[in-house]
Parts: sequence; structure tokens; C-alpha cells
Amino acid sequence: MVKTIQDDPGLSPYALRQSLLDTYSRVRHFSEQLCTPLVTEDYVIQSMPDVSPTRWHLAHTSWFFETFLLEPNLPDYVSPHPQYAFLFNSYYNSIGERHCRPKRGLISRPTVQEIYGYRQYVDTSISSFLTTCDEETLQKVAPVLTLGIHHEQQHQELMVTDIKHVLSCNPLHPVYQEQAMQPAKQLPALGWISYPEKLAWIGYNQDGFSYDNEGPYHREFVDAYQLGSRLITNGEYLQFIKDGGYQNPLLWLSSGWSTVQTEQWQAPLYWEMHDGNWMTMTLSGLRPIEPAEPVCHVSYYEADAYARWADARLATEAEWELAARQLPVEGNFVENKKFHPVPLTASTTPEKPAQMYGDVWEWTQSAYLPYRGYKPAAGALGEYNGKFMCNQFVLRGGSCATSVTHIRPTYRNFFPPDARWQFTGIRLAREV
Amino acid sequence: MVKTIQDDPGLSPYALRQSLLDTYSRVRHFSEQLCTPLVTEDYVIQSMPDVSPTRWHLAHTSWFFETFLLEPNLPDYVSPHPQYAFLFNSYYNSIGERHCRPKRGLISRPTVQEIYGYRQYVDTSISSFLTTCDEETLQKVAPVLTLGIHHEQQHQELMVTDIKHVLSCNPLHPVYQEQAMQPAKQLPALGWISYPEKLAWIGYNQDGFSYDNEGPYHREFVDAYQLGSRLITNGEYLQFIKDGGYQNPLLWLSSGWSTVQTEQWQAPLYWEMHDGNWMTMTLSGLRPIEPAEPVCHVSYYEADAYARWADARLATEAEWELAARQLPVEGNFVENKKFHPVPLTASTTPEKPAQMYGDVWEWTQSAYLPYRGYKPAAGALGEYNGKFMCNQFVLRGGSCATSVTHIRPTYRNFFPPDARWQFTGIRLAREV
Amino acid sequence: MVKTIQDDPGLSPYALRQSLLDTYSRVRHFSEQLCTPLVTEDYVIQSMPDVSPTRWHLAHTSWFFETFLLEPNLPDYVSPHPQYAFLFNSYYNSIGERHCRPKRGLISRPTVQEIYGYRQYVDTSISSFLTTCDEETLQKVAPVLTLGIHHEQQHQELMVTDIKHVLSCNPLHPVYQEQAMQPAKQLPALGWISYPEKLAWIGYNQDGFSYDNEGPYHREFVDAYQLGSRLITNGEYLQFIKDGGYQNPLLWLSSGWSTVQTEQWQAPLYWEMHDGNWMTMTLSGLRPIEPAEPVCHVSYYEADAYARWADARLATEAEWELAARQLPVEGNFVENKKFHPVPLTASTTPEKPAQMYGDVWEWTQSAYLPYRGYKPAAGALGEYNGKFMCNQFVLRGGSCATSVTHIRPTYRNFFPPDARWQFTGIRLAREV
Amino acid sequence: MVKTIQDDPGLSPYALRQSLLDTYSRVRHFSEQLCTPLVTEDYVIQSMPDVSPTRWHLAHTSWFFETFLLEPNLPDYVSPHPQYAFLFNSYYNSIGERHCRPKRGLISRPTVQEIYGYRQYVDTSISSFLTTCDEETLQKVAPVLTLGIHHEQQHQELMVTDIKHVLSCNPLHPVYQEQAMQPAKQLPALGWISYPEKLAWIGYNQDGFSYDNEGPYHREFVDAYQLGSRLITNGEYLQFIKDGGYQNPLLWLSSGWSTVQTEQWQAPLYWEMHDGNWMTMTLSGLRPIEPAEPVCHVSYYEADAYARWADARLATEAEWELAARQLPVEGNFVENKKFHPVPLTASTTPEKPAQMYGDVWEWTQSAYLPYRGYKPAAGALGEYNGKFMCNQFVLRGGSCATSVTHIRPTYRNFFPPDARWQFTGIRLAREV
Repeated sequence: MVKTIQDDPGLSPYALRQSLLDTYSRVRHFSEQLCTPLVTEDYVIQSMPDVSPTRWHLAHTSWFFETFLLEPNLPDYVSPHPQYAFLFNSYYNSIGERHCRPKRGLISRPTVQEIYGYRQYVDTSISSFLTTCDEETLQKVAPVLTLGIHHEQQHQELMVTDIKHVLSCNPLHPVYQEQAMQPAKQLPALGWISYPEKLAWIGYNQDGFSYDNEGPYHREFVDAYQLGSRLITNGEYLQFIKDGGYQNPLLWLSSGWSTVQTEQWQAPLYWEMHDGNWMTMTLSGLRPIEPAEPVCHVSYYEADAYARWADARLATEAEWELAARQLPVEGNFVENKKFHPVPLTASTTPEKPAQMYGDVWEWTQSAYLPYRGYKPAAGALGEYNGKFMCNQFVLRGGSCATSVTHIRPTYRNFFPPDARWQFTGIRLAREV
Repeated sequence: MVKTIQDDPGLSPYALRQSLLDTYSRVRHFSEQLCTPLVTEDYVIQSMPDVSPTRWHLAHTSWFFETFLLEPNLPDYVSPHPQYAFLFNSYYNSIGERHCRPKRGLISRPTVQEIYGYRQYVDTSISSFLTTCDEETLQKVAPVLTLGIHHEQQHQELMVTDIKHVLSCNPLHPVYQEQAMQPAKQLPALGWISYPEKLAWIGYNQDGFSYDNEGPYHREFVDAYQLGSRLITNGEYLQFIKDGGYQNPLLWLSSGWSTVQTEQWQAPLYWEMHDGNWMTMTLSGLRPIEPAEPVCHVSYYEADAYARWADARLATEAEWELAARQLPVEGNFVENKKFHPVPLTASTTPEKPAQMYGDVWEWTQSAYLPYRGYKPAAGALGEYNGKFMCNQFVLRGGSCATSVTHIRPTYRNFFPPDARWQFTGIRLAREV
Repeated sequence: MVKTIQDDPGLSPYALRQSLLDTYSRVRHFSEQLCTPLVTEDYVIQSMPDVSPTRWHLAHTSWFFETFLLEPNLPDYVSPHPQYAFLFNSYYNSIGERHCRPKRGLISRPTVQEIYGYRQYVDTSISSFLTTCDEETLQKVAPVLTLGIHHEQQHQELMVTDIKHVLSCNPLHPVYQEQAMQPAKQLPALGWISYPEKLAWIGYNQDGFSYDNEGPYHREFVDAYQLGSRLITNGEYLQFIKDGGYQNPLLWLSSGWSTVQTEQWQAPLYWEMHDGNWMTMTLSGLRPIEPAEPVCHVSYYEADAYARWADARLATEAEWELAARQLPVEGNFVENKKFHPVPLTASTTPEKPAQMYGDVWEWTQSAYLPYRGYKPAAGALGEYNGKFMCNQFVLRGGSCATSVTHIRPTYRNFFPPDARWQFTGIRLAREV
Repeated sequence: MVKTIQDDPGLSPYALRQSLLDTYSRVRHFSEQLCTPLVTEDYVIQSMPDVSPTRWHLAHTSWFFETFLLEPNLPDYVSPHPQYAFLFNSYYNSIGERHCRPKRGLISRPTVQEIYGYRQYVDTSISSFLTTCDEETLQKVAPVLTLGIHHEQQHQELMVTDIKHVLSCNPLHPVYQEQAMQPAKQLPALGWISYPEKLAWIGYNQDGFSYDNEGPYHREFVDAYQLGSRLITNGEYLQFIKDGGYQNPLLWLSSGWSTVQTEQWQAPLYWEMHDGNWMTMTLSGLRPIEPAEPVCHVSYYEADAYARWADARLATEAEWELAARQLPVEGNFVENKKFHPVPLTASTTPEKPAQMYGDVWEWTQSAYLPYRGYKPAAGALGEYNGKFMCNQFVLRGGSCATSVTHIRPTYRNFFPPDARWQFTGIRLAREV
């Protein structure tokens, strides 16, 4: 599952040990920082089957390090709570039975405090292990540790989106973090960047960490295409709504239209009409819609319908990747602590697409399928990306809930076409 | 809805004021005592639609006093949290919109601590009001206060049964209260007490408090009958199970049989087979089945099927009431803090039925319907017992989760025939 | 299950034989007459789980005679289609496995013609058997034959109501039988007939046929009451609709209100608004609502809500029976071939309630429960009325789809409170 | 939607007219031939939402010609049954309201005979129109007529698979067509055919008819690969079953595994275990499994799991198309009237894959998505292939229920990954 250990494979043994210790400690700590605004009650709730309680995320990521690193490598390691394995395994059928996913919100114990205790026990064990193990062991465990760190970062993103969903169920609109609204910017017009046809190499081929689904590195033929110069905004999406977008079946995929009707969708998730004005629930409370902000919390169905309405289409993941890998990984990530997409800042280089990283995950029109020659890793750690390669679409670029150190041009995120609770948005593409 | 104010209508004004203050304070305090063993996380969970989170019970009962007593009678009363009315109204359509019942578990705020603050605010307001109001006002509000107190006691019973259900969802079997198993007693044989035919007056006709559904006092003709001398035990119910009771459709009502199959019932709720032995989840943790204990957590369907298997039937509510009103209201109630039915104590008077009060609610074969001439009280407080008079069966006698001051011979509890999470059991009856 | 053989137990052996032969042949023939207007396609469809295809009714009633009469009594009887037992058993668990009820509409073979062949084979076998058997055998089988005949009549009623439901699913509104609308009559005002209190004997105690659930004959105390002099009409029900009856939760039972909202009920079943006017689907096609006709196709919930709105209540089944047994069994029955309730004819005797029999089944407020001392018959034939004694309400008096020879003052029909596809209507009652 | 009119665009006007008349008449007649074995009752049933009643197929295809050809081109055309438009429109939102798909089986009228009458009316109108219209009109309507003919052929395939499903619901296992079992052949071993890497042109680029989703003609890069020399057989699939294939979650996609558990799949659709032996329902009745036959009625989930178990994978649609377009379109098609896949005939050319056409549709691992540059045709006829491009997988090659004149190397069929009622099977692929 893990190609190589570290972003810089040329590290000295000492520097490698330090780097692992630092990264581990920094990332683990960040999970807890994200919980600072929470009260105990917030940690418990599972507001829909896709959402996990925060206490579950905190425990599951610790269980991951315990199961895949401590237990195989520390012969005298004793889990303080062996019964947690049943509760906090997510989907590794090969690791043993597990508690049913939709029932994660029915469990009140271990308490939040006990889970923090468990985290600390695991953290102490890992630190001690990393500090004292011999070099050979260090080399051996580095890939798994690195994987665990990225796994933790994935769950950090879910913690942000899940807690947003939990709070949104409360009619009192609780605030996670007070924050002034971003003042509106002069929005640059939507332009088009052109790319020539190419028999391209796609996927990850470097020395650092990547998930197994980003490879193998392989060739695809990509025709000439154009990419929108920035993300679609709330203001543009409001035009689609006003034009009857949600009432016109000809704009929608068949299963999308039936979802619109069954779920009575009228707007993106979290939008609420108050006295004739659209408002939206954010992690800073209920706010008016800001037209210049990237539209967010739309499903693939909505992104696809919008693109059809706009006489364009979504990009393929290869098209997106070719454009993105020429750009630095910069943007509005979770480290910004905005927890919300922001309007495009004033002057942008017109020849390069803006907002490719951060803000919102960009739906592509590519179904999530294995790259040519893909084989999952052997063992439990391989039971991961491959089994979801069905009825999902690829998203690229990360969001305001993603860590900047977690994202890459080749990173393939994926969700079913009706999912909306992630920070997901729209970039258009078209033929030349 | 409330016939008269107090159990003793001949109280002096001073004594009435003291009695109301004392009862209010004692009953309200008991709700909080029941929560002593809980951690914050336990208060939040709604483990199925019938269950409410403990924090909801604590807030809802306070909202009841605020809405029906403080707001109508204290012109300058200001609710500290007017928005709670939406969250903590249960089903009073006439009082305004309310939060959807199955979503009570999706709300993390107000926090448990804030709810305790709200309770305290309401309690202080009520105490101050009761202490200072004039006598006329006191007379006027006494019935509503009394109703609120009984309402609180009803929710205390639900708190016990709901928290039992919440904890039962946890594979770690958490303990609410450590408690040694009751040592088994010499169980008296099941005998039969005979009652002659009678044109009887049924229902409440005294001066104390009762619910509106216990009246009007009216006549019913009751043929001669016999009542089982005690409750059916786990040991007896195990015979039914071993005899294939759950596999034989001829023993069951048609809808009961289809529930058995859909829900895959094999035994009462909370029973689990471990290594070939039946265990049961209790509020004191997982324990082996005690044969002498009254069987508990059975549905009407199971009670009815058991009775058919035993060549008997369940009693009608009139039969039960005629027998019960000759007996003192004594038994294993919530004040005992067993939170579980107990085996019948040694010597019992053979000519009187034992265990009529407390331990478990006894299913009757009477559908829950209005007594002749029943009219609900006017206004919101009348929106209560009458609207549930459909597809439910009457239960009598109270349980180990009921307060002794809450029960009466005429008390009519009711649940749908498939409900099992209350402490519900079986007493047999038959023709002479 | 069957008390005695025949309406007149004093028949000579010869007359008994003739009477059985005649009745059998007449009733069996009537089932086929009811099918005259059908095309083959109509026989096949099951439009909802409660409905059975007409071909199923025709086969099931024949299977009943084969299974309970021919096979036990004719040692050399050979079923032409032994495999039909699986397809056409309805719910007799004791007779063996059976085809799942909601899947009756998924079976195209045996064809309608083959089923008519099967009926004829059974009829010929029965006739030959009845003609040739000795007197002792005749006495023995007479009760089962009589039961089979009444069973056939029950299914005739279902054939009428089921085919109405099937045709109602067709947007083309097909007509079963052309029929001019009954011209409107001068409708007598709704009056009230008074009955004194009484310790009454209730249930069947005569020598003719009755179902087991009509006994035992037993005593009930009935307080003084009044009964509405006629059925509630469409015109009166329209007032309820216009007064916001379907929008006011305070008028409804709790489960009724939730049904109104889930099912979006706005009017009785089969009512459709066309250009601002209420129309109704009938077996003679789509027609305007006739105000003087008895309202029809209402559920218990609607009958109960209407009664509450009208400041009255529904009768108990004992109240209904005491009034009805003083009246001749006359009215608008299926023999009239109207297949629809008709307005009350001009002059009625004001001191007697009109329309007690025929037109529409009258919902009572009595839950369908066993009479004191009720025991189902032993064997498969007892697996019938008793198993449905849960979550159903009793209806009395028969309808325009019932045979006049099938109904009695003591006859207890029963349906769940949300059932509407039978011809069901409203008579009010109240305290004196 | 239609590229060109006819397979041979060089036809003379006279020959074109003749060819259209002949093809129309032949294809329309074949639909009726397929119904010869049916009784009226068979035409009525919709055994699951995916299935349509045969009478619906017969009417819908006629409605298609009426709506898209007769009404726009014959100014004085009068539909004999204008109300059929509501009943027999399938999913053309732009054409007007339509009857809800899952309710097609609730409608008994128009009768089968009336629908045949309707067909005949449409056929007569079309023939007369084609015979008499001028050449310019003929040129104009030829594409729509051709489309209608191919549309009819698609529904012919559905008629076969839907009637198989309907008959399979009948526990009596009715036979559609008696047919001796194909005697088992000497099965050639499974070999592998290699194909080199290629920047290939994919899609339809010829002059004949094709669906819009087969284009645009475009380039894709295809790596070197190998294709299985024949279809996977029942015998091979039985090995997968015996090896615990249906019990091992590691072999399945996540949503596939959850389908296996929810639906309790143990084998392909229509397989039934009788006395320890697998049997299968066919259109010639219940038969033992023939090991040499291609396995059939498997879902994508099963095809994918089988391939993983066999250490191979499914082909992409481009890989399949490159191999197939070198082969003649020959195989076991519906014209054979086997209505079932047949074992591979003895000597096959080892260097070419066998059974590429006919027998069973071959699941590919390609999600059904638009080809680069795809735009649906304008107007109602374009509301077709594009709207289903989500959560479906592509199948190639046609089946024993497909017409030989309907299939092409570029033909893209598609179904959701859990669909099993079509004749769908497995061909393996792998990297070189």
C-alpha cells in the first residue's frame, strides 16, 4: 500500500527517527486540537450512517496504530482495552468481527475521557517504541507509521465534516468556531485554460508516500481540452437555481433526478431559505450566502447537472491531474482554520487555473476504477481502497478540511454520486 | 385531566402548600438521583425511536412545568431558553411545532450541564411561586402541579427503561448499578384464586389524583374467573421456549407470529445465549437467568402465546382491577433501587394473589379503549391519554421502575403489542 | 367452528340433502356470475398486498372444499392438481407450507380457464358425493359444507372489493358494470334513537350457522345510549372536509394522524378532485359525489375523527347488536347488483334506525377481541378468526358487497384501523 | 441519435423503400412470434420493478412509432387511443407525464387483444405511409424508422428475459418452450489470446445505424493485454462456489459483499438446490446444471469476484472492442430460438477468442460513461442513453436473447452492478 517511507528517502537514520517522531506527534496532536471547541455531548452523536461520532474517530485511529504497528512489532505490548478492537475496527473483514457501522452512535462507553486516555497510552507506546527501536526495525515500520499518519489525516477531514453535519441537525444552529465572514472580493470572470492532446503518464511515480490507488503509473491518451480558470461560485449556482435547474429533468442523470425528487433537493446541502433569502449553515453558524464563495456541498448529480446547464462538462481525472501537477500545492486547507471555502483572492494569473487545491474537492466525471494493473497490497492493510471501486466518482484537489501535507496531484478521493456532506464543489471543463 | 388536587383533600391551606412544596422537591430530586450513575455520554443517546435520551427527559419534564404552570400563572416569567419549547415539547400539537421524535438523539446541545441549569431555574421559580402565591392561586394551580409531578414520575420510569436499552446496545455490557444477585427462594407453586361474577363499578372514583383515562367510574359485568396466584417465572417461561413455543405458529396471534419471524425472536428482550446458557442484560450487568424471578421484557404477543400454551389466558383489566383493589399497594418498586424484578418472598397468603403491584407490569387482554362516557380534558393538557386509544393493550400494577406513589388499582398503562423494553410480564387467568 | 348444520335443524334427511345441494350450487354459481364482466387480464392482478387476484379467490374457495371436505371423506378422491395446495392455501399454517400472500399476483399459471376447470371438477365431485353419501355421512359433513359455503360468500365480497381496487389503479377508469346514478332522494334529517341500560346477553345462541367468534353467548352490561337514525352521508362528510377535518390533529387518534400525513389522505379512498369537484371511482366508473349517499371507503381513523368532529362517537358492538337484532335483515346487498351504497329511501320509520344492514359496514369503537370463554375449534378449521384478534376493529351490518344470506345481527367483521378498500362507513352514537 | 439511415447507404430509392418495409415488417412480426407460447395471463405480470409486462412491451414499441414517426409526419393521423400515450411512455420526460414504472403490472386494460389491435393499426399506418410517401419524406423518416426498429429489437430481448423472470416466480416452473438439453461437448481448455499495446480508435465510425453512445469515434491508449479464449462455464463457476466464494468478503467489492448478504446470494439467479444438486430454471423448465454451458445470470459483483478468485480481471470495453472487431458477428442469438447459452462447439481456432458474440452479455470492468465529446441528440429521442451514465457497467457482445441484426462490435449495453435477470456472463482478461 505504501510505496516508500518518507517524502525524502535520503534522510539519515537519525533524521528519519526524528522526522517520524515529530510528524507523528504533530498530526496526532492536531486531531485533538480540532476537538477543542467540542463539548462532551458533541463527541457521541452519529447523525446519519455516513457520519461517525467524533469519539469513534479518535479511538479508531488509535486502534489502527495499535493493531498494525504496536501489536505486530512489540512482542510484550498489552492493549489496555482488548475489547476496543471490536468497537473501533472500521471495515477490515480480515482483522475480525466488528461493530456494525450504523450503530456507532448507540454506544456511550468508553467515555470521551477514557478514549483520550487510550490515545495517550498508544501515543506513549509509539513514542517510546520509535525512540528505542533499532534502525532495522525503524526502517521496517516506517511505511506503516506513515500510512497511519495519513490515515489519521483522512479521519481529521471526516471529523470536520461529520461534526458539521451533527451540529447542522440542531435547530439552534450551534457554532463550532466564531469567525467573521470573509469580505467579498472582486471576482475574476470565469475564463478557460487550454491544454493540448497528449499520450500522458498518469499516477504516482515518486519516492514519497501515496495510496495504492494512485498507481500503477501508466499511460492514458488525453485529447485536447479546456479547464475553467476557477471554481463555480454560489452566485453562479444561484443562477442555475433561479433558472429552474432543480425542476428540469432534462438536465439530470436519471438516478440524479430521482434523488432530487425523493430527497426534495432544492439547493446544496445546508442551504436554508429564511424570509426569501438563502442562508447556509457553516461551522461558524448560520450565514447569508456569499455569492463570490465557491459553491459547496453539492453532489455529483448537482455538479453534473450544473455543467450540462452551463453547456460544459466536468473534467476527467486525467485532465485534472495533468493541469494540477504543474502547480504548487497551495490553497485554503484545514491549517487555515477557516473550515469553509473562501472567495478567490484578487489578482490571479490568467494562464493558470486558480483554486485547484484546497477550498472544495472537485468532482470529476471519472468513475472510481482501478488503474491498469492495479493490485491491492497483500494482508489487512490492502483491504482498503480497492473494495470501493464501484458506483463512486473521483474527486481531486482537497478541501478546506484537508491537510496540506496530505494532498498530492495524484490523490484520488471518491464518493457516491449523491454524497453531499463533504466540502465538494464544481470546476468546469470542455472540448477545445 | 385531574380530578382533585391531592391525596388528602382535607388539608389546611398551610399544609397543602407544604405538601406541594415537599412533593415537588422530592420527586424532582429523584429524577436527578436516578442519573447519578450516568456519565455525560449516556445522557445523549437515543437507541431506538421509542427511547428518548436521558437529557431529553430531564428537559422535557422541566418544560412541562414551565409551559403549563409558570407561563400561564406568572405574568412576568421569562423563560431563560424560549427556544427549548421547540426541542422539548413531546407531542402537544396544540402547543406548537415540535422537534421530530426519532431525531431526539441527533442533538448535542444544550449540554447536560445546561439542562441541569434549566431544571434548577424552573425549580427555583416553582418554589418561589409556590411559597409566595396567594391561597386562591395555590388552589388553582395545585391540580396542574400535581399532574406535572405524576408526569415527572412517568418519565422517571422511562429514564430507567431507556437507559437500560441504551446500555444494552453496548457490547461491553456496562453496569448502571452493581448489585448482588438476589439469592433464589423456595418458589411457591402456581395456584388459582377464584372470584365470583359481579356487576361491578370500575374506574377511579376517589378524591385523589388520577389520569383522565381511569374514568368515568362506570359499570361492567364481570363473569366468575380465576387469577394466577403469582407471576409467571423465568423457569416456567423456559419450559415454553424448550417446548418450541417460538417455533409453533398455532400458539401465536397472526401479527405476533409475523413479528417473531421478522424480528427473529427466540426469547424475551435482553436474553442472550452464551455457551448454551441463557444470560440476561440487567442494569447490574450481564447475569445468568434466575428461574425463580418473574419473566420480564416480554411483549403482549409473547404473554398471549405463553398463556395459550399454558391452556389459560390473560386477565381483562376489569378482572385485574377487582382483584387488586382489595390489596395494599406494596411491592418491589423503584424506591427499592433493585431496578429488576425479584423472586417471590417465602410465605405468601395462598388466598390472595401475590406480586400484583411492582416487579413487572402485567399485560391484560384488554385493548386500550375509552371507558364509557370518556371525554378528554379541554386544552393542551387533554391532548394526552385519549389519542393513543388504538392498537395498544392495557397493563396494570406498576413495575420495579415505577414509584409506589405513582400507582393505583385503577392505573391504566398501555403499550403496543410488540413493545418489550418496559418491565413487562405475565399473570394468567382462566374461567372457573 | 360451526355450531349447527343448517338454518333449519328440523329438516328431513331428504330435504337436508336437497337444501345442501341447492345452496352449494347457487352460491358457487354466484361467484362465477360476479366474474361475468371481467376480461382474463382482470383476474390476474394483485394491486396491493391486501388484495388477491380474482383467479386466486376462485381457486382458493375450491381448494377449501377439496381439502376440508373431499379429501377427508372420499377415500379414493384424487386431486387433479395436488400442487395447487401450495398455491391456494391462504393462511392455514397447520395444513402445510403456502405461497407468500403478497406474491399472489406474480403467478400467471394455472390459467383462468384451468381454474374454472378445477372449480368444475370440485363441483362435480361435491355434487356426486352429496347425492350418493349415506345419511350419517351427510350429517357429519353438513357443518363443513355449510362453513365452506359461507367462506365462499366471504370471498365473493372480497372479489367485489378487490376488483374495484384493481380497476381503480387504471388511469383509464374502466367500468365493471354500467349503471345509471341513483337519483338523489329527499334525505331525512339525522335523528337519534334511544336505548335503555341493560345487562344483556350478547352473541349467537341460535341453531343456525355462525362463526366461532360470534360466541360464546355471554352477558355484558350496556349503559343507556343513543344511535344515529341513519348512516352519515357524503354531504355531511364533505362538511367535515371543508371544515379542515384532515388538517386538524386534535380530531385524530395519534396513529391516525400519522397515517393521514404519511398517506396524504385528503378524502375517502377513491375520491379524486377534478376541476375543483370531488369525483369518485365506482364499479360503474368515475362519477360525481352524490351528497345523499352514505359515505364509503373510510377507515376507522376517519370514522373516529368524523365522530369526534360531530361531537359524538361510534357505537360499541354490543350497542349495535342490541339495536340490530330487533330489525329484519333487509337492505342494499350484493344481490341488488348495485355494488355501491344507495341514498336512504324516502319514508323511514323514525323510531327505528335505518340502513343498519347492507350499504356499508359500520365501524364500531370495539376492538376485535375474543368474547368471554372463546376457544377456537380444534384442527385446521379453527385456525381462523381467533388469530386476528389484535389491532383490528369490529364492523357490523354487511355492505352492498355482502350476501343477504351471509349476514346476521351477531356477525363480527374486522379490519385494521387504516383499511379503506372495503365498503365501510359511519353511524354515530352518543350517551343519553 | 442516428448516424445514418441504413446499413447500405448506397441503396436506390426504390430499394430503400423496400428494405425499410421489409425490415419493419419482419422485426415487428418477430415480437409477436416471441409471444406465441404465452397465455393471456402471462402478458399481464410485472414480477419486479425492472420487469415490464409483455403487453406493455408490445404497446410501448407501437407507441414509439406512433409518437416519433406517424404523428410528426402524417398531419391527419389520428391515434385510435390517445390515452395510451400516458400508459405506454417509458421515460421520455420531454414527451409529457407518464405512468409510474413500478405500476405497469397493476393495469389490466387495454386487454392483450386490444393491444394487438393497436399494433396492427400502427403497422397498417406505417406500411401505408412508407408505401405512399414521397422520396424526400422517406429519406427524412428513414433514420427514425431505423431507430424504432432497433428499439423494438431491444424490447424483444427484454420480452425474453422478463417472461423468464415472470415464469420463474411460479413454483410450478412453467415451460415457455420445450427443448431437449444440449448434449455436453468436449470443452476446450481455457487459453489466453494476447493483444499488443495500441493507441486505438474506439467507437462507431461507419455508415450504418448505431446508438449515439457508441460515438464519437475517438482515441484511447490500450496497454498490452490477454483475453480468455472462451466464456467461463458453469463447471468453473461451481468451483468458485465450492471454494467458498460466496462466503469470503475479501473477494468482493464492498457494495457487492453487502448485496450478497442482504439478498442471501449463494449462486447465480435461477439456480435452486434440489436434494443436494444445483438445478436451474430455464425457458424450457427446471433442469440440472450443465457444466460445459457458459455461466449465466451473474451480476457484475459476481463476475468481478469470480475474476479476483481466478487471479484475473474483467476486460475493459476498449480491450473487448479491439478483439471483437476482428471477428464476424456469429453466435447463439435469439434467432436460434434456444433462449439459453450453449456449450462451446468442438473445434475452435485457438488463436481467436470464441463466443465473443451471442450466448451471454460479457460484463466489462468499464463504468458506463460518455465517450470523449459525447452529446445526446437534441429533442425527445436524445433523452435516452446519456441519462443512464451513472452507476452502471458496460456489457458487450449480445446474448442468446439478442437479434443478430441488432449487435455490433461497438454496441454498449449497460446495467447496474447487481442486475442479474439478463443473460449475463463472464470472460476473463489479464495483463501480459
